[in-house]
Amino acid sequence: MSYASLKKELQKIADVGFASAVLSWDQETYMPPKGATFRAQQLATLAGIAHKMYTDPAIGNMIKVLKSNNTLNEKETKNLNLVSEDYEKQKKYSTAFVEEMSHTVSECFQAWQSAREKNKYELYAPVLNRLVELKRKECDLLGYKEHPYDALIDQHEKGMTTREVEVLFDDVKKELIPLVQRIAQSPQVDDSFFYQHYDKQKQWDFGIKLLEQMGYDFNAGRQDISAHPFTIHFSSQDVRLTTRIDENNLSEMIWSCIHEGGHGLYEQGLPVEEYGMPLGNHISLGIHESQSRLWENNVGRSLLYWQNNMNLARTYFPEQLKNVSAQDFYKAANKVTPSLIRTNADELTYHFHVLIRFEIEKALIEEKVNVNELPELWNALYKKYLGIEVPDNTRGVMQDIHWSHGSFGYFPTYSIGSFYAAQFYAAAQKQLKNLDNQLLNGKMEALLAWLRENIHQHGKMYTSSELCVKISGEKLNFRYFMDYVVKKYTNIYFQP
Amino acid sequence: MSYASLKKELQKIADVGFASAVLSWDQETYMPPKGATFRAQQLATLAGIAHKMYTDPAIGNMIKVLKSNNTLNEKETKNLNLVSEDYEKQKKYSTAFVEEMSHTVSECFQAWQSAREKNKYELYAPVLNRLVELKRKECDLLGYKEHPYDALIDQHEKGMTTREVEVLFDDVKKELIPLVQRIAQSPQVDDSFFYQHYDKQKQWDFGIKLLEQMGYDFNAGRQDISAHPFTIHFSSQDVRLTTRIDENNLSEMIWSCIHEGGHGLYEQGLPVEEYGMPLGNHISLGIHESQSRLWENNVGRSLLYWQNNMNLARTYFPEQLKNVSAQDFYKAANKVTPSLIRTNADELTYHFHVLIRFEIEKALIEEKVNVNELPELWNALYKKYLGIEVPDNTRGVMQDIHWSHGSFGYFPTYSIGSFYAAQFYAAAQKQLKNLDNQLLNGKMEALLAWLRENIHQHGKMYTSSELCVKISGEKLNFRYFMDYVVKKYTNIYFQP
Repeated sequence: MSYASLKKELQKIADVGFASAVLSWDQETYMPPKGATFRAQQLATLAGIAHKMYTDPAIGNMIKVLKSNNTLNEKETKNLNLVSEDYEKQKKYSTAFVEEMSHTVSECFQAWQSAREKNKYELYAPVLNRLVELKRKECDLLGYKEHPYDALIDQHEKGMTTREVEVLFDDVKKELIPLVQRIAQSPQVDDSFFYQHYDKQKQWDFGIKLLEQMGYDFNAGRQDISAHPFTIHFSSQDVRLTTRIDENNLSEMIWSCIHEGGHGLYEQGLPVEEYGMPLGNHISLGIHESQSRLWENNVGRSLLYWQNNMNLARTYFPEQLKNVSAQDFYKAANKVTPSLIRTNADELTYHFHVLIRFEIEKALIEEKVNVNELPELWNALYKKYLGIEVPDNTRGVMQDIHWSHGSFGYFPTYSIGSFYAAQFYAAAQKQLKNLDNQLLNGKMEALLAWLRENIHQHGKMYTSSELCVKISGEKLNFRYFMDYVVKKYTNIYFQP
Repeated sequence: MSYASLKKELQKIADVGFASAVLSWDQETYMPPKGATFRAQQLATLAGIAHKMYTDPAIGNMIKVLKSNNTLNEKETKNLNLVSEDYEKQKKYSTAFVEEMSHTVSECFQAWQSAREKNKYELYAPVLNRLVELKRKECDLLGYKEHPYDALIDQHEKGMTTREVEVLFDDVKKELIPLVQRIAQSPQVDDSFFYQHYDKQKQWDFGIKLLEQMGYDFNAGRQDISAHPFTIHFSSQDVRLTTRIDENNLSEMIWSCIHEGGHGLYEQGLPVEEYGMPLGNHISLGIHESQSRLWENNVGRSLLYWQNNMNLARTYFPEQLKNVSAQDFYKAANKVTPSLIRTNADELTYHFHVLIRFEIEKALIEEKVNVNELPELWNALYKKYLGIEVPDNTRGVMQDIHWSHGSFGYFPTYSIGSFYAAQFYAAAQKQLKNLDNQLLNGKMEALLAWLRENIHQHGKMYTSSELCVKISGEKLNFRYFMDYVVKKYTNIYFQP
């Protein structure tokens, strides 16, 4: 039994997974409405097949034999150990459970779409309830040490626990709330120029330029339009981004493009020779998000970035931006104000949106709240943490796609990603002496090369924590994020 | 063992096949270039999985048990018998052969694309040669009575033999050559207005209108752009068309749209409850092509059609068409002239293009010619049957995608389809007394309903021949096609 034959089998399983990904991409970009029912069935079948292939005892035997093989090199050993862990985990699911989950997710996604359109939560609640019950069952199947929700977080951010997330959010509450309050008492910045009419095609072209500038390879990827921007890949050689464009809001397109571009660069940077293997895969969603946030916020909302790109923006929108300076643009890009929609939230209040979802998910999994009570709880928490009234469920509890996709334990990774981004970016700034000057000149190559070398190329070689220590000398530390935002927002809001 | 459980298994296999179809569609519409290698691997894996699932002895057992079950209704019995035949056929292939074929096809397709771009047949020949060898092997695997090429025709036009195709083409030679010669001696029609500048977006919009008029359901399908127009479906609820648009030639888009629309209507009309079963599938490529040709030629190149649609065309292109009457448009749409490219050929000389390919394929499979000699043979046959010189291989032997896809035995179905179309359309005209008047008023519903009732809804309930007898009272008869074209072209070319 050779390592090569295990790799070949795993790559076939990956082929099936990536085929599912193509079907999902199509579902959210181009699929006509009546295609939904059979598409759900096709996705469920592929999920069942992949699971069956993965949990085939032949795979277990190959792993067992190879574990006693001492000619494997470091990378092969790492792959083998990770595959072995994953194999044990996958075996906890039955194929029937996997197919039921896939079916329920597809149904739930359809229900969410139509409930959202009609603002009728009651159309969504029954199938969401079934999905939540399946997720609770999944926690039991997978097992956990302290809290059932640990099992769900672990799927997205391996090794992290409910307790650790609570500690992080305690910091968020302790430190971000006062900062946001102080900002609220300061003169507000003006971002009204974002809300003029901006031609769709020109926005599209501008977004493509920004992606090219970041180093996104359009020969190994593309961008399309979808209701909710996302990144998905079918190999590191075919990485798809989507964006959305609002003709009356330039900012949505810009930072959605840069954000997804950051995800895309990570996926294009994963080692192609490790296709289908753990070392060809991202570490965790938190690390994935660190890449999107780093580009979106640390780079894409910096003054230097707009000092360089203001002229480019003006070539597309000379009329709309004629009286807008780079400084104005920078300030507007960083306007802090409590708002209703997570994906439009600023860099600070964003984390309250995540906190709210984290608290709700925990309560759901603990069965302290039921699905019918979610709108009320949601609205109460928006009042509590953001001080705002939620006008309807479409813009409230139904605003996100995640729950309809069965993605519980996912939201915390958004905040974790932002915090990692700050820590990584601080390391990059230290190690790349010339970084600021390069950004000012629109040269992103060195930053991308640094990310490729320090993060992308390793795949799952290190855990999130190991990688973080390797890069910055210490584990995830909220302090980096606070230092970064205090400095930035002092400059924007508290300068005399 | 119930019929329902066999159906469930077959539908899962269909899910995998349709997933492959989504990957193929994406490959030819949106996939970035670097995605090709892994996409080929993903398609090969899915092909292998589907084959393995289909040839699982459990399926064989289910079929066997059900065959002795006498509670099945007529449709169930038909499905069972067809599945049984197909099962026996699939068992003749090994999974390794299926995967090798899939890999070779993907490679060959890539080689064809790049060889074509560079006009270098030598880049294509070696992998085409491997593919031809695989196809020869396939003939042996499948078996045949008279001629190895029978096995390949049978895959696309079940029940038809090399000998029968030869007889058909003898008629083509005997009857079409004199007609085309007589046309060549008559005054030529003027189609120069097609070759003005026609805005791409407006062409696109016009094409969509024509598809809507035919009754194509855009909630169960869509149209995209690809290098080579094709139709593909992932269920009868998700049928995709593609088209191409030449800014300097209006005619290409129009009849490509109508042609693919005809294919699409067939697929949208297949019974949804028979998803994944033979009765949910088209009869043969010849019958499929009868649907596209009927719409493209019998309807879309008729005088009535343009008497109705000329005003619509003028709303998109008022300048270009201001001096063009419906009669002018009709004549131009039916201009007969020998030409280089099959897909642009007129309704008559088209069949010489098919004849040439048929003769070459037969010779290849018989090993009377080798792949390196194809350009020479191709050019000689174009001289012989069409009287024209082939300027280069890109516009010669490499013009079609089919061989690179491993589709041998496919081309004859194009002619067969045209002949069926004429026979079916004659039946429709007889049975729908009012058809001409409806076309003149842009009312396509009755024709579509007739096709749905007589052809689409049956799936594979009847063989091509049985269906033809059921509809027209006799088997495929070339006379219908000749009657139709003699009448049409006499009107266009031989009126005093």
